[in-house]
Amino acid sequence: MDLLKFQERINKVREFLKINGFGLQFVCSLYNLSYFTGVHPLALERLTLLSISQEGKPTIILPRLSEQEFKHLGSDFNLRVWEDGQDPIKFVEEELQRLPPGLPLLLDRGTPGYLVLALSRLLPIEQILFNEEAIKALRQKKEGEEIELLKASGAIADQVLRLAFDFAKPGMTELEVASYMITEIMKRGALADPPVPTVASGPNSAVPHHQTGSRRLQFGEPLLIDFGCVFNGYYSDITRTIFLGEPSEEFQMVYRIVKEAQEKALSKIRPGIPLGSIDREAREHIANSGFGDYFIHRLGHGLGMEIHEEPYVFSENSDLIEVGMCFSVEPGIYLPGNFGVRIEDCVVVQEEGPLLLTHSPK
Amino acid sequence: MDLLKFQERINKVREFLKINGFGLQFVCSLYNLSYFTGVHPLALERLTLLSISQEGKPTIILPRLSEQEFKHLGSDFNLRVWEDGQDPIKFVEEELQRLPPGLPLLLDRGTPGYLVLALSRLLPIEQILFNEEAIKALRQKKEGEEIELLKASGAIADQVLRLAFDFAKPGMTELEVASYMITEIMKRGALADPPVPTVASGPNSAVPHHQTGSRRLQFGEPLLIDFGCVFNGYYSDITRTIFLGEPSEEFQMVYRIVKEAQEKALSKIRPGIPLGSIDREAREHIANSGFGDYFIHRLGHGLGMEIHEEPYVFSENSDLIEVGMCFSVEPGIYLPGNFGVRIEDCVVVQEEGPLLLTHSPK
Repeated sequence: MDLLKFQERINKVREFLKINGFGLQFVCSLYNLSYFTGVHPLALERLTLLSISQEGKPTIILPRLSEQEFKHLGSDFNLRVWEDGQDPIKFVEEELQRLPPGLPLLLDRGTPGYLVLALSRLLPIEQILFNEEAIKALRQKKEGEEIELLKASGAIADQVLRLAFDFAKPGMTELEVASYMITEIMKRGALADPPVPTVASGPNSAVPHHQTGSRRLQFGEPLLIDFGCVFNGYYSDITRTIFLGEPSEEFQMVYRIVKEAQEKALSKIRPGIPLGSIDREAREHIANSGFGDYFIHRLGHGLGMEIHEEPYVFSENSDLIEVGMCFSVEPGIYLPGNFGVRIEDCVVVQEEGPLLLTHSPK
Repeated sequence: MDLLKFQERINKVREFLKINGFGLQFVCSLYNLSYFTGVHPLALERLTLLSISQEGKPTIILPRLSEQEFKHLGSDFNLRVWEDGQDPIKFVEEELQRLPPGLPLLLDRGTPGYLVLALSRLLPIEQILFNEEAIKALRQKKEGEEIELLKASGAIADQVLRLAFDFAKPGMTELEVASYMITEIMKRGALADPPVPTVASGPNSAVPHHQTGSRRLQFGEPLLIDFGCVFNGYYSDITRTIFLGEPSEEFQMVYRIVKEAQEKALSKIRPGIPLGSIDREAREHIANSGFGDYFIHRLGHGLGMEIHEEPYVFSENSDLIEVGMCFSVEPGIYLPGNFGVRIEDCVVVQEEGPLLLTHSPK
């Protein structure tokens, strides 16, 4: 990504501010920061903030520790460096002098609570808005190089998933399988993220966000693997559920319903229809099959520079699907204490329909 | 950790609320949540909140997805489960009815900005305080089982560091070394966190938070490894810098100064003296040696259930060292474009002085 690309993205936010009469956009989410600067600092608890104004250079408030990472941005940004032990709020206060009187300050979801409280003491509450509409619109629309990176990340996920199912044997712990996967992901120049792949054996497959642990895989049980990796800043995310040994009839039935639900949802995806209708398509199929109470999460989430980002695919979402949107389609049925089945792939929406980013067999 | 332990911790927060006339303590940090419940949910963007009141059961507001993880807490908590697509703020509003009129609502640092803004519309700003003093006091004071876990985590870090330096050879990439370390950490029942160990070769060692990449290790260069792992919920953190081949005189000099700075700081640690004085001890030594401008971060950070937590060790911190505090002592000198040296160990403070949690050679 070259510096011009970042400048172009920032200019689009400027236009949005001007057109809508907003004063400043603060960017605190490290992913948003990375989208506009190419730097993804390991900021942890140290305030790192980009401020985009209608006119003039954007400002970055950053800890001394991150100075070298941002240096290459050079003269296109005002860099305001604070030292450990200093209160960075004074730089925020200074930046607020660029906020035209009465115009709103826009915040993104990454804004830490303590900063909002500090701001609420410096500005009237009505002037502070959580609004990252411009950023959302930009980040939601994946283009050229971004789509290539998403495909490459998906291809790595497909490869590692195949290896993982070959590797996994009854008697191994879930963590052994996960550890093997992390190594295979890193061999391909990517990183596992979430850092530990979800490897859920037997009844653990019924816990959607199961924490991979020391339970041993057994014959005659399902094995669910859900993981993502990040490759050059772009994510993949995939889930498959298999059965070790001869699947029970109950498992086969549940598997078939989940697979059909995913197929139905995928077949509906095209630009111009509401995101919610995709969720409802899958949900209705599962409900009609008698398992409505056991599909306990939304159908999907956006994917890109974050493993969960806009757009979210839930029944009530009336936002329309647009070309360039990228999201997961992951119906599941979870029978507590017994087993669960989830099947997940991500797609990028094209004019003609969804482009699948992963192709592992189901 | 048994359920009684959690109840005991919650009761201490209750006492704090009563004594100081505070109304409610909200807990949003996933680490704090884990400290009080034993559950560390993969919450990502879904609001998960513990509310502790002066009287009555504590409330947990949680997404449906996490319900099973919290179930074992059973009847000791009010569990308020929200569904994907619902706005969890309505449960927050309901919980605020338990806030005695006029008494402050306390928030922790994990409170997301959007929740603070929502709260600022439900309550007078003056009634909202960021205050986790009670939680900080509890979490800062490591006891019995916690100290054993910190030692165990440190022992794993020592083992893996030794293996990593044996494994690392010129020609390998930084990421290959990191990947090997992750596997060795997981073999020992722990997880690498940060997920990728910092392996910084040559000039990369001059970037304190270098992101491990594809640069190849070379003879005649320093190699800095900084990593932590989490074992049963408790962290370790260690840094060592070695030289591949015959160290230059410049490297030897810088190394000696950093090592002396750490020794001087460690020798000062005892209960009752200000945290800041430990930082100043190391900083003065480095400054007197002519490298004051190149030690660009605080001396240390607390360690426990988080890799960075209270107390922070910086010059201006006048808080007194107490028995049970656990923190890192990690002076460094960074010569941009050339190389850097950092040496880091963590200690738990005992009556008689610091107990080192790692013992790798320097």
